[in-house]
Amino acid sequence: MPLTKNVAAVLHGKNDLRLEERPIPKPKSNEALLQMECIGICGSDVHFWVHGSIGTYIVEKPMIIGHEASGIVIEVGSEVKHLKKGDRVAIEPGVPCRICNFCKEGNYNVCNDMIFCACPPCDGNLVRYYCQAADFLYKLPDHVSLEEGALLEPFSVAVHACKKGGVTADSVVLIMGAGPVGLCTVIATRAYGATKIIVVDLVEFRLQQALSFGADYILKINPTDSEREIIKRILEVLGEEPNISIDCTGLESCVRICMLAAKKKGVMVEVGMGKPEMNLPLFEAQCKEVDIRSCFRYCNDYPTALALVSSGKANIKPLITHHYRLEDSVQAFQVSKTGVGNAIKVMIHANPNWKP
Amino acid sequence: MPLTKNVAAVLHGKNDLRLEERPIPKPKSNEALLQMECIGICGSDVHFWVHGSIGTYIVEKPMIIGHEASGIVIEVGSEVKHLKKGDRVAIEPGVPCRICNFCKEGNYNVCNDMIFCACPPCDGNLVRYYCQAADFLYKLPDHVSLEEGALLEPFSVAVHACKKGGVTADSVVLIMGAGPVGLCTVIATRAYGATKIIVVDLVEFRLQQALSFGADYILKINPTDSEREIIKRILEVLGEEPNISIDCTGLESCVRICMLAAKKKGVMVEVGMGKPEMNLPLFEAQCKEVDIRSCFRYCNDYPTALALVSSGKANIKPLITHHYRLEDSVQAFQVSKTGVGNAIKVMIHANPNWKP
Amino acid sequence: MPLTKNVAAVLHGKNDLRLEERPIPKPKSNEALLQMECIGICGSDVHFWVHGSIGTYIVEKPMIIGHEASGIVIEVGSEVKHLKKGDRVAIEPGVPCRICNFCKEGNYNVCNDMIFCACPPCDGNLVRYYCQAADFLYKLPDHVSLEEGALLEPFSVAVHACKKGGVTADSVVLIMGAGPVGLCTVIATRAYGATKIIVVDLVEFRLQQALSFGADYILKINPTDSEREIIKRILEVLGEEPNISIDCTGLESCVRICMLAAKKKGVMVEVGMGKPEMNLPLFEAQCKEVDIRSCFRYCNDYPTALALVSSGKANIKPLITHHYRLEDSVQAFQVSKTGVGNAIKVMIHANPNWKP
Amino acid sequence: MPLTKNVAAVLHGKNDLRLEERPIPKPKSNEALLQMECIGICGSDVHFWVHGSIGTYIVEKPMIIGHEASGIVIEVGSEVKHLKKGDRVAIEPGVPCRICNFCKEGNYNVCNDMIFCACPPCDGNLVRYYCQAADFLYKLPDHVSLEEGALLEPFSVAVHACKKGGVTADSVVLIMGAGPVGLCTVIATRAYGATKIIVVDLVEFRLQQALSFGADYILKINPTDSEREIIKRILEVLGEEPNISIDCTGLESCVRICMLAAKKKGVMVEVGMGKPEMNLPLFEAQCKEVDIRSCFRYCNDYPTALALVSSGKANIKPLITHHYRLEDSVQAFQVSKTGVGNAIKVMIHANPNWKP
Repeated sequence: MPLTKNVAAVLHGKNDLRLEERPIPKPKSNEALLQMECIGICGSDVHFWVHGSIGTYIVEKPMIIGHEASGIVIEVGSEVKHLKKGDRVAIEPGVPCRICNFCKEGNYNVCNDMIFCACPPCDGNLVRYYCQAADFLYKLPDHVSLEEGALLEPFSVAVHACKKGGVTADSVVLIMGAGPVGLCTVIATRAYGATKIIVVDLVEFRLQQALSFGADYILKINPTDSEREIIKRILEVLGEEPNISIDCTGLESCVRICMLAAKKKGVMVEVGMGKPEMNLPLFEAQCKEVDIRSCFRYCNDYPTALALVSSGKANIKPLITHHYRLEDSVQAFQVSKTGVGNAIKVMIHANPNWKP
Repeated sequence: MPLTKNVAAVLHGKNDLRLEERPIPKPKSNEALLQMECIGICGSDVHFWVHGSIGTYIVEKPMIIGHEASGIVIEVGSEVKHLKKGDRVAIEPGVPCRICNFCKEGNYNVCNDMIFCACPPCDGNLVRYYCQAADFLYKLPDHVSLEEGALLEPFSVAVHACKKGGVTADSVVLIMGAGPVGLCTVIATRAYGATKIIVVDLVEFRLQQALSFGADYILKINPTDSEREIIKRILEVLGEEPNISIDCTGLESCVRICMLAAKKKGVMVEVGMGKPEMNLPLFEAQCKEVDIRSCFRYCNDYPTALALVSSGKANIKPLITHHYRLEDSVQAFQVSKTGVGNAIKVMIHANPNWKP
Repeated sequence: MPLTKNVAAVLHGKNDLRLEERPIPKPKSNEALLQMECIGICGSDVHFWVHGSIGTYIVEKPMIIGHEASGIVIEVGSEVKHLKKGDRVAIEPGVPCRICNFCKEGNYNVCNDMIFCACPPCDGNLVRYYCQAADFLYKLPDHVSLEEGALLEPFSVAVHACKKGGVTADSVVLIMGAGPVGLCTVIATRAYGATKIIVVDLVEFRLQQALSFGADYILKINPTDSEREIIKRILEVLGEEPNISIDCTGLESCVRICMLAAKKKGVMVEVGMGKPEMNLPLFEAQCKEVDIRSCFRYCNDYPTALALVSSGKANIKPLITHHYRLEDSVQAFQVSKTGVGNAIKVMIHANPNWKP
Repeated sequence: MPLTKNVAAVLHGKNDLRLEERPIPKPKSNEALLQMECIGICGSDVHFWVHGSIGTYIVEKPMIIGHEASGIVIEVGSEVKHLKKGDRVAIEPGVPCRICNFCKEGNYNVCNDMIFCACPPCDGNLVRYYCQAADFLYKLPDHVSLEEGALLEPFSVAVHACKKGGVTADSVVLIMGAGPVGLCTVIATRAYGATKIIVVDLVEFRLQQALSFGADYILKINPTDSEREIIKRILEVLGEEPNISIDCTGLESCVRICMLAAKKKGVMVEVGMGKPEMNLPLFEAQCKEVDIRSCFRYCNDYPTALALVSSGKANIKPLITHHYRLEDSVQAFQVSKTGVGNAIKVMIHANPNWKP
């Protein structure tokens, strides 16, 4: 298959996503060149597109978007041993410095020199050809699809949350939010053995999805419900307090509910990323010795995510509701933004030979 | 239902198990009096029956046997709040002192003043009526049977092993031995999310049982197989090294295989109890930084075990292969000892109204 | 020594602390009757005295105050083995239910049925004679004074914070606040091996105390200093970011600084108890994967606290700056409230034979 | 200072250590070229010299010996940022692959592709000029000597043991063996806050050293003492059981004592490396739920070791008893082997300008 033009989806600023041609990169000795295949659209991608920034991360110069991806190896560098041309791979979308103490201690996700896809000013991988360090490429077994390979990214976020929260057999879990990350968290907590999972959201469709992904209980709330009322209903449904509360929304109201509903000695895990300042009931959490654990991306979680998918413990495929070609990226972003047609995860296909 | 005579199965020494009448006990303020229902026979019960001792534990005076049990509440002491007459309960068969540091730190299983059923000189509960501290009685939901209640005891052993070993989603587990504890460990590691489980045993029937309880792979070995050959085959079957090895046999040969097969930074969990001295390859384990974790009974594991059974994550019921009345205890012990008829777990029923 | 009248310092409500006579209690079988000796005044005692309540804990009926105490055994119950008449003991001022899951799992500090001294409606121990469960009495070696015995209470708070925060050799610790708990935390973090300790406070005298207790660095701030300026100065003084921040103030401003100053993957430990709601920079903590750990009293920490004091690793005695007789309790509370005379810890002596 | 000839101490086989000239290496982009300064002799160096092998590690071709070292930066590669010419550094003597899962998870000490100094077939650093990856070089503060820099290597072994064993304030520690590693372990456990440390050895001089390095108790034993007698005396001296036992000998007899003396729920840490097979009392350890934790070298421990030395928490300097020039390496090895003159740590100086 001769290489074609290297088309990339480049974000130039607010609401300005353009298709442009870029040179085809050459892999370094430890890298592999990939034919990109599937690239999912993440809420953060949409946020950059709509707002031009997330917190202190500002799109100041054109940046290729995209970071939930899979591809096929076209060429490998001289030092690459575990991959060869034709291998289908999931792409972990960051490369740390490997030499700082964070990296050496196994916490590369907080490496100060991390180069992370589509986090300004670093380019993402919604593009046709892409080079990545080979040790952050995970070969997919034959029975795992490229779509699932791309989904390993949001699923790794959920796996990371489970590890940080210590989800295990017999955990009673509250999940706030049933968007893509919330749903991934349902799947992951289930795979980690949780005996009770309740999911809370505003949208009935999403809650039904949560049920289909394995939640035991769902609770539909309204924006006008009081905090204490929501907590009361959570506890009624569960019949006990959750020992692990996972917020997948980043909303102050949901973080608060996680803290307040948690069982004594429980844990509140923050996955969603929200506004810089939140009004929080720390005192009440403290009286219960509830700890708050922060999640930032993932770290050594792709192998776990792949093991869970590959072994059949986690069925993430139904997360994908829509498919688009790379050429139709703007349309794909539009659908992802609005959620029209009950969109959960919108997948873009970068291979020109892809057929719906 | 008027109380009948309190018949007990009393071990007087080697091969001397007799049915005798005992007074019906009165519950203290924190206790409940139980109509005993199901009492499973454990390997240790049989060992006491056959040998009159286990290690330094010697049956020096008549001792009621039995410790894997469930019952129905007949009467509760004045301080008991969470139970009432008629409740069906699983019985955790030990009561610690509650005031030593081990107890206060959450490690009551090593309390020096533990009173544990059928561990000489303490009486067990293969008897018609029995009193136990109410906080070591676990009310069974309607859909959990009394048989399952009794099985929570060996299943708690397996749950304890999973907790000590840190079994979690993505664990690759080697289990040596497919006896009742080995099979419980298959069920438990599965519930804890392990992605690969291999079970090794000498007996085909047991290995088939392991498969039916959820093992991914089984390996039948022969007594003449060399250690290195067995390890080679384990790694071939798994396609990788187990990061958690669990020995459920107490045999030196199996402990060795667990240590030698384990992945670097892995864990070897010792559940089986064996001879006082073993020749072990500590050096090789050390070069891999493999840790050895010891299990002694269980501690705070009954609630987990019940949650797993109650939620349907663990199906332990098929462990029971044979049923006997209390009056036929000697026969039940005989079957349990010989394993005739592919016996796994032999269950004795203490309620005179029990019908097969 | 014949027993005298049992005088107690009874809080009737806001600013209403009275000396009253109470019956001399009889020890139960697991209890010891104590001649009370030293009772330190805690900030919470003063708060109850001044405000009549702390959060939802309201003094609704007369309550004996006091919970930082030591005494001498006068009589022991029939089951008490490790104590005898004449033993000098530190008193852990709470007794949990011992039968709930929290207790059995080693987390008795969050037991729902905890009876805790001077936490309404439970009586405290600023009284002449007092009964306490013997397993919560810790015999003092000859070289540890009764004053130190009483100080084990606030020191256990600091020990608990060190355990929860994971303070260890090479920890770089930020401590906000140099009141009694802050100073105890300096001593404890030092004993736990921290290589760098910085203490921040508004009051020069307290900071000098912090230095004398082993802080490496102190930073005097002013109420008008900006948050970012304070953090900048902390980092300049330390030459790096603290990996453990411990708030001993309960003030929103200090909690924020702890979160913001912490190193990536670091920990923020909340010891001080503050207002119900706080405006907190959770997002920034999350991007660093900084966890927030809550402390509520202590649990299994008295033995550690005593070991540190007894071995000479922790010198807590200089915390005491003032001494009063039980009869002068109101005056003692007055000094503790105002901090006049550079008061740190005010100690009340309940033994009528005490001589200054 | 013009570079001189690059003299190296090369081990050709059993008892065949020769001084030879080697080319001066050029640093790669991530490396620094060092003027080697201090190189301590380790027991493993002597073992390779005397036996030509350790276990499966065999000196099959000439290998430069030495791995406990410090040096001065002569030149840095283009990517090196934290070092410059003239910096005095401690050298962590291994470089892992950085890309395998062990490396990424923070366990680079078990990396399968680790290149470790003086571990056949990799060259060591008892040589005049040496290149090492800059991130494994630790800049020494002005007040930390190059001798101390070299000693960080064995001290890191002890730090690793403390971390694996969970030594903390209030630990009661048994250390078997008072050789260099045993003495380092005394220093480290003290820095980690242990409240009681007992050291057991056969040699009075070593035990006196242990006392001077901070041990609370010493116990001199004889080769003919029975195991149970030694344990009895350990417990008598301590007045309680150690909750952490650390074997620094690799001897079966000492490993056994560690396991048997340990408190229930305690930990046995294996630091010494011994013969391939040992007869061990696993059953007794299991009944106490004593865990066995293996140590292999160190991992992320140099920064801790340096922080402890730099902060004055650990005084390792007195470990050095003898000094030799590189030219006198054979003599130095001879002294280290025999321990003549109460040798503990023998230090070789590679800088031709070194003056005793």
